[in-house]
Parts: sequence; C-alpha cells; structure tokens
Amino acid sequence: MSCNSFGTLFRVTTWGESHGPAIGCVVDGCPPQIPLTEKMIQPWLDLRRPGQSKFTTTRNEPDQVKILSGVFEGKTTGTPISLLIENTNQRSKDYSNIAQSYRPGHADIAYDLKYGIRDYRGGGRSSARETAMRVAAGAIARLILGDQIKIRGALVQIGDLKVNRDRWSWDEVKNNEFFCPDAEMVPQWQDYLTSIRKDGSSIGAVIEIIAEGVPAGLGAPIYGKLDSDLAQAMMSINAVKGVEIGEGFNAATLRGEENADPIYLNDGKLSFSSNHAGGILGGISTGQPINVRFAVKPTSSILIPQPSIDSEGNATDVITKGRHDPCVGIRAVPVGEAMMACTLADHWLRHRGQIGQFRSSILD
Amino acid sequence: MSCNSFGTLFRVTTWGESHGPAIGCVVDGCPPQIPLTEKMIQPWLDLRRPGQSKFTTTRNEPDQVKILSGVFEGKTTGTPISLLIENTNQRSKDYSNIAQSYRPGHADIAYDLKYGIRDYRGGGRSSARETAMRVAAGAIARLILGDQIKIRGALVQIGDLKVNRDRWSWDEVKNNEFFCPDAEMVPQWQDYLTSIRKDGSSIGAVIEIIAEGVPAGLGAPIYGKLDSDLAQAMMSINAVKGVEIGEGFNAATLRGEENADPIYLNDGKLSFSSNHAGGILGGISTGQPINVRFAVKPTSSILIPQPSIDSEGNATDVITKGRHDPCVGIRAVPVGEAMMACTLADHWLRHRGQIGQFRSSILD
Amino acid sequence: MSCNSFGTLFRVTTWGESHGPAIGCVVDGCPPQIPLTEKMIQPWLDLRRPGQSKFTTTRNEPDQVKILSGVFEGKTTGTPISLLIENTNQRSKDYSNIAQSYRPGHADIAYDLKYGIRDYRGGGRSSARETAMRVAAGAIARLILGDQIKIRGALVQIGDLKVNRDRWSWDEVKNNEFFCPDAEMVPQWQDYLTSIRKDGSSIGAVIEIIAEGVPAGLGAPIYGKLDSDLAQAMMSINAVKGVEIGEGFNAATLRGEENADPIYLNDGKLSFSSNHAGGILGGISTGQPINVRFAVKPTSSILIPQPSIDSEGNATDVITKGRHDPCVGIRAVPVGEAMMACTLADHWLRHRGQIGQFRSSILD
Amino acid sequence: MSCNSFGTLFRVTTWGESHGPAIGCVVDGCPPQIPLTEKMIQPWLDLRRPGQSKFTTTRNEPDQVKILSGVFEGKTTGTPISLLIENTNQRSKDYSNIAQSYRPGHADIAYDLKYGIRDYRGGGRSSARETAMRVAAGAIARLILGDQIKIRGALVQIGDLKVNRDRWSWDEVKNNEFFCPDAEMVPQWQDYLTSIRKDGSSIGAVIEIIAEGVPAGLGAPIYGKLDSDLAQAMMSINAVKGVEIGEGFNAATLRGEENADPIYLNDGKLSFSSNHAGGILGGISTGQPINVRFAVKPTSSILIPQPSIDSEGNATDVITKGRHDPCVGIRAVPVGEAMMACTLADHWLRHRGQIGQFRSSILD
Repeated sequence: MSCNSFGTLFRVTTWGESHGPAIGCVVDGCPPQIPLTEKMIQPWLDLRRPGQSKFTTTRNEPDQVKILSGVFEGKTTGTPISLLIENTNQRSKDYSNIAQSYRPGHADIAYDLKYGIRDYRGGGRSSARETAMRVAAGAIARLILGDQIKIRGALVQIGDLKVNRDRWSWDEVKNNEFFCPDAEMVPQWQDYLTSIRKDGSSIGAVIEIIAEGVPAGLGAPIYGKLDSDLAQAMMSINAVKGVEIGEGFNAATLRGEENADPIYLNDGKLSFSSNHAGGILGGISTGQPINVRFAVKPTSSILIPQPSIDSEGNATDVITKGRHDPCVGIRAVPVGEAMMACTLADHWLRHRGQIGQFRSSILD
Repeated sequence: MSCNSFGTLFRVTTWGESHGPAIGCVVDGCPPQIPLTEKMIQPWLDLRRPGQSKFTTTRNEPDQVKILSGVFEGKTTGTPISLLIENTNQRSKDYSNIAQSYRPGHADIAYDLKYGIRDYRGGGRSSARETAMRVAAGAIARLILGDQIKIRGALVQIGDLKVNRDRWSWDEVKNNEFFCPDAEMVPQWQDYLTSIRKDGSSIGAVIEIIAEGVPAGLGAPIYGKLDSDLAQAMMSINAVKGVEIGEGFNAATLRGEENADPIYLNDGKLSFSSNHAGGILGGISTGQPINVRFAVKPTSSILIPQPSIDSEGNATDVITKGRHDPCVGIRAVPVGEAMMACTLADHWLRHRGQIGQFRSSILD
Repeated sequence: MSCNSFGTLFRVTTWGESHGPAIGCVVDGCPPQIPLTEKMIQPWLDLRRPGQSKFTTTRNEPDQVKILSGVFEGKTTGTPISLLIENTNQRSKDYSNIAQSYRPGHADIAYDLKYGIRDYRGGGRSSARETAMRVAAGAIARLILGDQIKIRGALVQIGDLKVNRDRWSWDEVKNNEFFCPDAEMVPQWQDYLTSIRKDGSSIGAVIEIIAEGVPAGLGAPIYGKLDSDLAQAMMSINAVKGVEIGEGFNAATLRGEENADPIYLNDGKLSFSSNHAGGILGGISTGQPINVRFAVKPTSSILIPQPSIDSEGNATDVITKGRHDPCVGIRAVPVGEAMMACTLADHWLRHRGQIGQFRSSILD
Repeated sequence: MSCNSFGTLFRVTTWGESHGPAIGCVVDGCPPQIPLTEKMIQPWLDLRRPGQSKFTTTRNEPDQVKILSGVFEGKTTGTPISLLIENTNQRSKDYSNIAQSYRPGHADIAYDLKYGIRDYRGGGRSSARETAMRVAAGAIARLILGDQIKIRGALVQIGDLKVNRDRWSWDEVKNNEFFCPDAEMVPQWQDYLTSIRKDGSSIGAVIEIIAEGVPAGLGAPIYGKLDSDLAQAMMSINAVKGVEIGEGFNAATLRGEENADPIYLNDGKLSFSSNHAGGILGGISTGQPINVRFAVKPTSSILIPQPSIDSEGNATDVITKGRHDPCVGIRAVPVGEAMMACTLADHWLRHRGQIGQFRSSILD
C-alpha cells in the first residue's frame, strides 16, 4: 500500500513538493550493468520542462537531474537509483492568496479533508511538478526495454479541435510546441490557446501514447493485466479523467465482427489485419502496437473567479495567480510516454521472472 | 506481483477456470465480527448469474456460493474467507472446434503466446465466469462499507443507443433484464439485441457505476489514488477497453471555469454546485458521489466466421458455438458494482490505518 | 499487507480453520508447462500427516489434496493453482472445555485480544493444521526448483538431547518417526518422548533445513535478502521462537578470522573452505549449501493444569484434552522444508526477473 | 518485490552507497500532523554515529540529516518524507586493494555473483552505513508510536562474555560506549575489545531489544505475524545471523508447563506470571513486553590475512585496511531499536486499518 510508489519489480517511489527544496525518486529493481549517466536522463526531462513556450507555465526550472546512488563507473549496479532535482524557481508568495481558500476543481480541498494539513505552496505534493520524476524514471525504463521498443506520444485533441489522423507525422511531433502530429492543426491550436490564455482560462486535451515493438506475452490474468496496469498508470497522472486502449469507448458501438482483429501468418510471422484491441488481449500483449489514450481536464488554476470557501468556511471568490499551464495536456505527453515505459519495463521483468524468456514458437 | 489478487488491506485472490471443477476466491483482511452468511452473498450472485434472459448466455449455472472459512457462528473472525462455487453446467465439447484455433479478438492466442499452454474449454481462466467471484467478494465489501454507502450501477449504452439521462430511474434498473435506467430505451434495446443475436453477432456497451455516501478522504497521492485504483479495477474486468471518471473524456473539451465545481457551505456542510470531478480530486474522495463509466467491447465469441489461424499456423475461419452473451455488458453491471465496492472497502481500511478515523471539521 | 499470503512472484495464500469444512491454498505465479498431478503433492503431505506414530497427534486425517484449478491435461498453465484438503476427522466436542477459557502459552487469548472473536475449535486458524497447505505449496515449489536443488530437513534436538553430527545420516532420517539423522539418538528420544507423553506434557525441539545445489545470486539487498526472508518464513511456522543461519548465535562468539570462509578455485569452480555463512553473504546465496535452524517451543496444549482465566475473567485451571503432539517439532520438519522450497522458488523467479539468467563467469 | 523497502503501511525505502555522494530514505505512510523537525531525528543518529569511541570505526561522519519533503511548518503532511545524509568523510583510496579481490565472509563476492558489478568502495550498498537511514526512519516511527511505547536496546554479549541479568540497569546503558546494561561487565569488554583491536581482528555480539507498553493485538495470522516480521526486520540488518523471541532457542529445552505463561487478572487488568513468549502469541502482541535478541557475526574486514581469490580467479591473501568496527554489534543496538520501532509502527497502522481501534474489554 505504498501510496507513492508504482511498479513491482521495476519500482519507482517519488517524493517532494512543488516548493520544497527538491523533488526526487528512487528507482528500485533496475537490472545491473546498464550504462546510465545523467546525460541520458536529461533530454527526456527537457521535453517536459516548463518555461519553454508561451503555452506552458512560465516557471523556469532548469530541472537538472542528479544521480545519487545505484550507478558505479557509468553503469547501473542493481541497487536503488536515487534521482534528485533541486527546486530553484519557486515563487511561493504567489500562493499567499490561496493558502486559506480552496480552488474549485483542485486537489487542495481534498488534501485538507484527508490530512487536515497541506503544503499549499504551488500545490505542494499535488503539483504537476512531481511528474518530472516520472519522466526521469521513464528514461531508465527505456534503457531496460532497449531500442527494439519504441514509445512515442502525441497530443491529439485540445478542446474540440482534434488532429486529422490522415495527416499524422511523427516527425511533425518534434517540430511544434504541442507534440502535435498534424502540421495543419498547429496554427489552429496556437490561435485557440492564445485566446484561452488571454481569457485567463484553461482547456482540456487528449494524449495518445503508442508503443511499438513490444513482444507478445507481457501482462497476466486477472489482476496483473497489462491494460489494467496501464489504466492505473495513466489515471495516476495529474488531471487525467479517462483512459482507453485500442478502440476504447468506441468499442461500445461495434459488433463482434467489426471489432475482431483477423489473424494470419505473414512469412511465418504472426500478424493481424487490424488493431482494434490496441495490442492487448486478455490483459496480455500480442506483439501489435500498444495504443493508449487519456483525457486531461483543464487546470483549475485560472484567473477567472470561482465561487468557493476559505478554510474558515466563509464564501469567497478564488483566483489563482501563480504561473500555470493554459493546457496541462501539452506537458502530459512526455509524462504519458514515461508511464508507458515504466509499466512495460515492470511487466517485462515480471514476465521474465515467471516465464524465463520470450517463447519461440509459431506464435512468436 | 500477485497477478490474481487485487486490493491491499482488503485483498481478494480469485482462482478457477470456466470448465474446471469449481471457481473460488479468498477474501483476506475482512474486519472481524461482521455478520456474514451465504445468504447474504447469494442475491448479488443471482443478479450476475447467467441463463436468466435470452440476452445472456444460456449456460445455466445455479452459482451457489459456499463459505469454507473465516466465519464462525455467523460472524467474520478476521481470518481469510474462502468462497467456492462449483461448476455444474459445463459443456466442454462445445469447444472442441476452438481447441486448436484462435478466435480473433479473444484472449486465447495471448495466453498461448505467453504460457504456451491454455485450458481452452470455455475460455479457461479468461472466461467471464471468473467475475462471479468478484461479485461474491463485492458482497462482503458492501458489508464493510455499511448502509451509508450506496453503490449502484446501470447499463447506459448498447451500440449507439444511449439512455436518456432525463428519464433516469433507479427503480427502473431493477425492472428490466438490462439494468437499464430508462424505461423507454428498454424495448429499443430488446429489438436491437434480438437482431444482434439472430445475426450470431455481439455488441459493445457502456456501464456506469455510482457510489453515494462515500466519506471524504479515501485515496492517497500519488500512486494510491482512488481514481487510478478504480481505473485499474474496472479495466481488469473482461472485455473492458475504456474507463472514465466524472466528466471523463468530455473534460478534454471543457474550459477551466466550465469544469470547476464551485464550493459552498450548506447549513455548515461542505457542498459543491456540480460534480464534474466525479467525486474525486487529487486522487482523494471529496464526499460527492463517485461516478465511473467503462466501455465493454463486443464478445469475440460469435457465429460469424472470422479469418484466423490454427495452432499449426494454417489459415482457418473460426466460428464460436458455445453459449455466449450477445452483449456481455449487461452482466458487467453487477461486476462493476462489485469492483467499486471492493476498491472502496480497501481504501476505507487504508485510510483508517493512516488517519485513524474520519476527521471531523468544517470540511467534513 | 495480505496477512495470509507469502512470497511475491511465487505467492501462496492459505485459508481454513482446524475444524471447518476444509483447508486450502492458492498458489499464484507458478510458471506454466510444469507437469503436476495430485500424486506429485501427496507424498509430501503424507510425511507431515498426523496419526502416524504415537509421538504425534492421534487425529487421523487422510489429508487427500485436490487440485481445483491451474492445471490442464497434467501441466500447470500459469494461472493460479487452487489446492483443497477436506477436514474429515474433527472432534470439536473435545474443545468445549476450552471454548471459554485461555490456554496459557496458546494463541487463543491473542486472537480474542485482536479480533474479539475466535473459532476455538481445535485452535481454529492458529492450528498447526494450516501447515499442511504449506507442505502442499512446497511440493509445487520443489517442481519449479527442479532436481538440481535438494532440500532436506532433520530434527536435531528434543529438549536437551541433541544429535551427534558425526553420526549424521540422511538415510537414517527416513528410517525413524522423528526425522532423526542420528540412529543412536532414536531410542533415547523414544524413551524421553514416551515419558513426556505419559506426563501429559510436551517438549520443544530444534529443526535444521539444508538446501544444496542452490545457485549463487538468489536474494537481494537490503530488505529482500534471502536470509531475512527465510527468517520470516521459518518464524511464521506455528510455535517457532528462534531462527538462525549458518553459525547463527554461535557467530557471536567467533573472531573475524574464525568466521571467515576462505575462498579458492577448485578446477575453475568457486569454492569455500568452510561454511560459517550458511550459504548466504550480504543477503545473497553464494552457491554453498544453505543451512537454517529453528527452535520450536513445546505445545501449550497439555494435560497438566495451568492457571488461567476464562473469558469472564474468572480464575480457572486449564487442561487441554484434544489430541496433541507431545513434540510439535517432529512434524515441523517437512513444514520447514516446504518454507525453504517456497522461499527459494520465489527468489529464483525474482532473480530471473531482474537478472534474466544465471550469470556464467569465473564466479559461477 | 521492492528489495530496498520494508513495511507496508509505514513503508521505508533506503538508497545509497557507502562512498557515494549521499545516502537517504523515503518514509511513506507517516500519518499527518505529527510534529517533526531534523532536531527530533538527529539525536538517534548521533547514538549510531561512527567515530565516537575507539571501539567503533574511526570514520568520522557528522551524519547530519536533512528533511527534503513531507513536512510543512514543522508538521508531517501525510506525504512521503525524504531524508538525506551527505557522505563527507569517504576515503575511497583505502579500498583500492580490495577492488579486485574478495574478502572472505563479506558480501562483495555475492554482489559480483548476482550483479556482475559492484561499487567496492567501502562496501558500497552492503556497508553498514545504510543503517543510518534505518535509525532516521526509526525516529519517525517512534513519533507515531508515542510516548506510551518505550523501545530500548542493549548489548548483552561480546564473544563469550555475557552480561549478568541480575545487574541489568537501563541507566547504565547510557553510561558506557557499549550500550552495556551491566556496569561490571564494561571494563571486561574494554579489555577484551582492546585486545581484539590490537590483533587486527573482530568479534561477534548479541543485542537485545525490548519494547514496553505495546498494546495487545498487533500482528496477524498467518504470514503477517508480528514475530515473523520482526525476525525479517532484524535478520535484514548487516551481519545478523540469528534472531530469537522470548525464550528463543532455549524454548527447545522446555516442557509445556515450564514454557506456559500463566494468566490472571490483576485489578481487572490482564496479567501474566512470566513472559517466556516474549510478548507475542500466535503472531499477535499480548500487551506484555516484546523481547527480541539477535546475533551479529564478527565483521569480515580485518587485518589478519585471509585466503581468497581476485576477480581473475588468482589465489591471494586479503587484508582489509579501511576503518572498521572491531565489534559491529555495538552500533547495531540503535539499529535494532529502529527496526523494532518501524515494525511496530507498521503493524499499529495495519491493525488500526483492519480493526479500527484498540478494543476495550476485559482482555484489554
């Protein structure tokens, strides 16, 4: 019931508050002898780093990761890897006005209801700042998975504006500040988010994460299913309200023959004519690409006054100044990738434990 | 990494295959001195039981539950409760034709990919039959939660046919074979499913589960969130492909001020003007109703031939005779309720462990 | 915090009370494709079975194990294995006199203190009867470990009578009713236990379990150590009050140079001149035999009156009639072997998960 | 299977190597609103701190603990508490001679066997330096347990020299550099250890930890027993080879009536005439003092040459210069206390989760 850990054999425990001296994580269970340096983690953090465009928070954190343990002469040793990022650009005074009142839609009232105390500065533990450590852990998970497994994410919807899948380009994802795979959508999103930002408001989004090259056999019935662990992983990201795999909610509208993925052998290799399943059947990977989408709500930290109460119970209107993302969904893309990487790494180690190696048969 | 268990303090481990001698579960962590008899579990099983209408499988299982341990003189003792249901109405010969070939969209190929062996009779471990034990465990979870927490579910969509929420009636849910809350939708679903069944096909569905009376404070940051555990719980149900909470995917289309749930005091009691959050903020319950929806795909066991291969790799068309639900979503309603009950019971015990008791303050 | 489970990747959950309808366990995580039948488990149960000599309880239980799931056509499938043994020879009326009073030194008062309720018949959950399921699970663990790992146990001390290690014979262990490795000690123990039994008393014992052929590398720092998991495993057996590994408590009296195990290569194979460490260094197996001893207290169920109270708080003298072992340590031998097997199987799977395979180097 | 964590609801994860930049831990599950500052942890660390007498290592570490998260305005918030101690006095060059050879009796060969890589400097992860974080976590555990639970430890044996229990004085424990409760033994130990140190050797020891004021009801059958968790906790401390509770190994020599602890009511309060059980029956605390002893082997880092091999397999004699404790058992006293505190805190929270509160009945 360790509430700040995820994973079993590849286990990540994060700690830290938005405005404390530092945030960090402990990665336990990483196999030994994997080359690892801070430089191999930093690029992934840079992708998530705030202050990089006008569409994300202006809090400017260098987010320099330090490795404090578990690595010797540039290689993992099998012992726990401690990662730490110092907080350098806190501006806690911004939050004085919300110290004693509750942002509607924000976690702060829930923390007070549960704990009777909260570090209100910058959202404390509930800040999206914690997700930096997920990204750092995800970088290590990618090293375990190796190059044959490719995990990529994209932003596919902001508000009602959805990308056109016919124009999907992974190259384009790297070209714009939105992780948008559809070049024609980029200017529309720019205009739309500029308007949202000027209004002092925020907007929701949908992220899609795709993992290619995942071997068949990861996951296990009935409660260690790969898809249920992915659902848990994605839903644990701040502000996520929905998760779907493959056809997702659309599967509700399909008939059995529409949703089936016909099977054939292609040069002796197991193949499927379609991928409604999103790469997972019965909780176990099939070798097809794994496809997960999740919805992020608009951040509750906005400049538009919201009716609320203070901690004395008096009615008040709340405005959140601070520095916030008008669309937190943007920076959730690398976080979603990281959660996919960590979940797959964990299941890879579990599978190897129970099965010993990937089977080689006609079905491989 | 116990793959067949869920929960931490209230922990359920299920076992059994569709066509084995029995299925069962062990419920570990139930508090002592709770009155419990088989008669208190059976009604919930009867709701899920197959063979009750022409829209569910005709396999006719009495599903009589036996308590084998953990209860003494009608009360729980705090020791593990072993529940067992004998399988009585297996017709394994129905499955001889799929013993060596793979149903597209079904778990059987994934099991073979992982384990290199599977009990193909009736889907073996991947059969929805396992969910009977979830319902049994859920009945015990309800006893822990007590009467003040009301957990109810309904089927809200079959194919493209969605219920009208303005006509929602919990009484109606008990009146029809669909757990449908909208009386006017019932005949439409009857016609539609009759047609699906005649075609030898199947169809997907969406289920909604609502828990009222849940105290504030259940759940915990960051990876023991109530919503991420609910996502995992629901996604672990057979055939589920998507889970959402509160506004869910619709939150992607909302602005911050639209998605906020304004807070006020009503006679000194914490209240919210709306419930876009679905009763959970920052992973912690707020006292509002908890609202979860999940999408179920159409079963892959259909009479319409699907291109596939046999275990030798030869191309073949697969038809699944057996006895299957044209819409597995119907019987998923009591299963979803059970998963909600188990998840809440687990978090209730966890919360009591860390916090000691529910706080009493202005926020309660 | 599942209190009735042990192990992580190889996970055993037991249930059942001494005088309930049955006892059982669920073995989760067993790799697939391992030949398994009831006949492969039964011989191990027969070793532990009561009623086989005048020095163990006269309760005569056939202890016939049934496999209810997880095996298909004689092989494990990777899904949970449910094992069940029916209780057939309960004589609950024997216990009416202790229903309302507490045996000094027995668990029954502790159960009442914790739960406020207990199944007093035969000790309920605290009965040594539960250990039958450990033995059954251990039989499966042995199949995972394979023939190269040999796990054997012996009784090395009853009261003050210790075996002479110079006369140690594993063959002799099978020849007598005590699992005694020293043929000359057998008649002494017979006389001594006959006298204990006639007095209506009981006596403690020490058991030694040795595992040979265990590969190097099992276990992990710092809290997943093989020795700390073995300590937990052995201490969880009923009546055990002490556990030691290698030199154990005697290590307190040794100097560094006396306790060191010099290292050398023998035909290129890593070798040690001695085994004070008991096969484990830094929590990790070294390839040497693993050597664990544990002490079992005398059973508290004796015919000699003990001052106590009843549940109303009145002073009373307690005599336990029932049918009890004058030396529970005897039947603890196969139980200790089983706990060794389960612990090693679990660590073997964990190790394979993190490391992938046993390393082959000069150190292997 | 998180190998560097212990506990379930009160969960401690440690990280760090002897000669890395720092060591640390994450304490997850601490209840909120507990006053906590670095000054409340430091005194416990100072007790364990090296360099305080000529009988412990001369490595002089200030061991200043920093709290990096989980505390706000001097109180715990319920979020994970990150603690960090910088390593300041490493002298890694001392270890160049053992970089490529294996100390007999030391963990370094086991790490190489498992991981194929190790941080040899100062023992890396296997160094007793890690135990500083146990002591820090233990300080927090004590705050959870409160003043009514008193946990104290003492060194009771060095080599063959055992304290006289008739002269036991807790005040004396604080008066000498050995945590020795027997004033008359102190000069004997001083002479003996001086001689051991001059020889360049080391010696084993036995530590006893006693917890008074522990409420009845902590622990749970069958695998969440308080005694088996204590055995695991103590055996996880570096160099520990044996653990016993209450009578421990001596129980093997006792008859049932000798080992029973007669029960009576004393002014309505549950009382026992003796405490052979060490405060635990059936895995559950009874309210009596809990009494655990563990044996520590002599450190393998000695100046007396030991036959061994280097990593190329060449025979070599190993001498360990470094700075080592001639009797690591001395500094194990505060570590054992900390493990007792952490285990009790975890079980206290577990118990509160399942039972809700301590029962009040005649048995309390």
